[in-house]
Amino acid sequence: MSKLEEIANGVLAGNRRSIARAITITENTPEEAQKLIALIYPHTGKAHIIGLTGPGGAGKSTLTEKIVREYRRVGKTVGVIAVDPTSPFTGGAFLGDRIRMQELSTDEGVFIRSMATRNNPGGIAKATKDAVKILDAAGKDVIIVETVGAGQSEVEIIKVAQTIIVVHAPGLGDDIQAIKAGMMEIADIFVVNKADRENAEKTVMDIQAVLQLDTREKTWIPPIIKTVAVTGEGIPQLIEKIEEHRVFLQKGLLHKRSLEKAEAELIEAIKEQVTGSIIGKLKRERRFEKVLQQIVDREIDPASAAERLLNQELEKNSQNDEA
Amino acid sequence: MSKLEEIANGVLAGNRRSIARAITITENTPEEAQKLIALIYPHTGKAHIIGLTGPGGAGKSTLTEKIVREYRRVGKTVGVIAVDPTSPFTGGAFLGDRIRMQELSTDEGVFIRSMATRNNPGGIAKATKDAVKILDAAGKDVIIVETVGAGQSEVEIIKVAQTIIVVHAPGLGDDIQAIKAGMMEIADIFVVNKADRENAEKTVMDIQAVLQLDTREKTWIPPIIKTVAVTGEGIPQLIEKIEEHRVFLQKGLLHKRSLEKAEAELIEAIKEQVTGSIIGKLKRERRFEKVLQQIVDREIDPASAAERLLNQELEKNSQNDEA
Repeated sequence: MSKLEEIANGVLAGNRRSIARAITITENTPEEAQKLIALIYPHTGKAHIIGLTGPGGAGKSTLTEKIVREYRRVGKTVGVIAVDPTSPFTGGAFLGDRIRMQELSTDEGVFIRSMATRNNPGGIAKATKDAVKILDAAGKDVIIVETVGAGQSEVEIIKVAQTIIVVHAPGLGDDIQAIKAGMMEIADIFVVNKADRENAEKTVMDIQAVLQLDTREKTWIPPIIKTVAVTGEGIPQLIEKIEEHRVFLQKGLLHKRSLEKAEAELIEAIKEQVTGSIIGKLKRERRFEKVLQQIVDREIDPASAAERLLNQELEKNSQNDEA
Repeated sequence: MSKLEEIANGVLAGNRRSIARAITITENTPEEAQKLIALIYPHTGKAHIIGLTGPGGAGKSTLTEKIVREYRRVGKTVGVIAVDPTSPFTGGAFLGDRIRMQELSTDEGVFIRSMATRNNPGGIAKATKDAVKILDAAGKDVIIVETVGAGQSEVEIIKVAQTIIVVHAPGLGDDIQAIKAGMMEIADIFVVNKADRENAEKTVMDIQAVLQLDTREKTWIPPIIKTVAVTGEGIPQLIEKIEEHRVFLQKGLLHKRSLEKAEAELIEAIKEQVTGSIIGKLKRERRFEKVLQQIVDREIDPASAAERLLNQELEKNSQNDEA
């Protein structure tokens, strides 16, 4: 049995160390990750995947912690993936939150992992998707993916989820702009956390106002749930809505979304493999550098250069095949 | 003369309407954009491209406006591209700022354009790069690209610039985290705007502290400039630093950076074209949908499916070539 098969079997048995090692592989060695995912993929598709996002200061980590505890109370196993966009030289922010989460993870029914974005900011969406598959194959009933911010890459990451929760809180000021920008369209449930603050009602109304601008026809109207994560207030109601949304998906949309997700992942995989093979090969040839210099010298534009290189490549391929 | 050739000639002559039409093409019709860029590309490479980014509320728009006025004062022509991540249904935020900028654009030596991100969030980085090339070919001496936020996609956009300015302001609280996350590594110049506020010195020290954590060897230490954009205070000093950085680049780094940028653009173009041709073709075939269903049914994982499809494609190609 190869090392990867051993890890895959460990994952399928729900072994913590195997799960941790498997996720590390997805972060660091994309080629091994691909083989590993191929091994476990047949055992995925059972977990309900929840995405949780929103601006800094909204209380996402505490909310995640309370959601985990509530699911544990009703006997479900939970995996958590926190995507943390810390910089190479600032190190980890929000350490306190993470320590509190680590306490939770002494529970055998919970697996918590922060994804390191420092080494491959571009590959983080891919690694997160793989980590979700690993926790899914490991038998977790519920998987929560928590991201900070609302940039394009966060939207990309959070799309792995079936139920997307967008969290906001009163008094975050301009950040409502950030929510508007990217997250409003993809939210299945809104949470106004810190709802014991005096401006909570205004935050609820702000979200309602933006929702009313959305004139697309909808079969699911995103509810707005008020919570006070630190005291646990509103958490059972939130779980109820998550379950409602899960049932709603299963009644119809789930298959459509699964197909869309499969298509997105397949196209991404095709792009990656083409990049890996064609570009890797081109880079080892002298003409690649020559073309770069031509682009810098404005003798040819990048798109035309790409076209020329690809055509040369196709010609060579057919010659090789004939030989 | 084709319509595109006409537009290209108009761009090269610096005609405003042609420039506007050309940028619209980059936003909406990627295939036409590629042809257009090929036509104007030989005339690019002369402008100095400045990137300006930072969290909401830092005063980026006012700062951009003042930089434009200062460059105009010394007789340089300027192009501005504002990348505005407004949502499909919220419409344009910061309308007041934009109106103020429009006043500026009655000046023949200034061209200002907001890029619409609503239709293709993924394509915005590409469209912005193309718009920069258009303004460059149109003869603008200085081009400013202004983006909001600090997500991965904003980092991607701002990389088009030769001199990157990261703007911050006192009292934005947690947003320093956002700057730390993605922008610190790429900043050539820091600006602490609203420097007349009482906490300005603390903001400067925060940035210094983060800078000191960066132990990489550097030939350019990013300076921190204090400005009060609304009164114009500090703007001449900022322009001076931008010019210093431009000269610094020309003494050595510029060629290296040009090669890196050419490589990034070439690889991106190869990926796009492969996607456009191979994936476009695959999607029209029945087996594509069959494979999607197999992925959903967990019979095969996306990466293995991609491998299989690509191999089939290569085999078919060689058969076609032999026939």
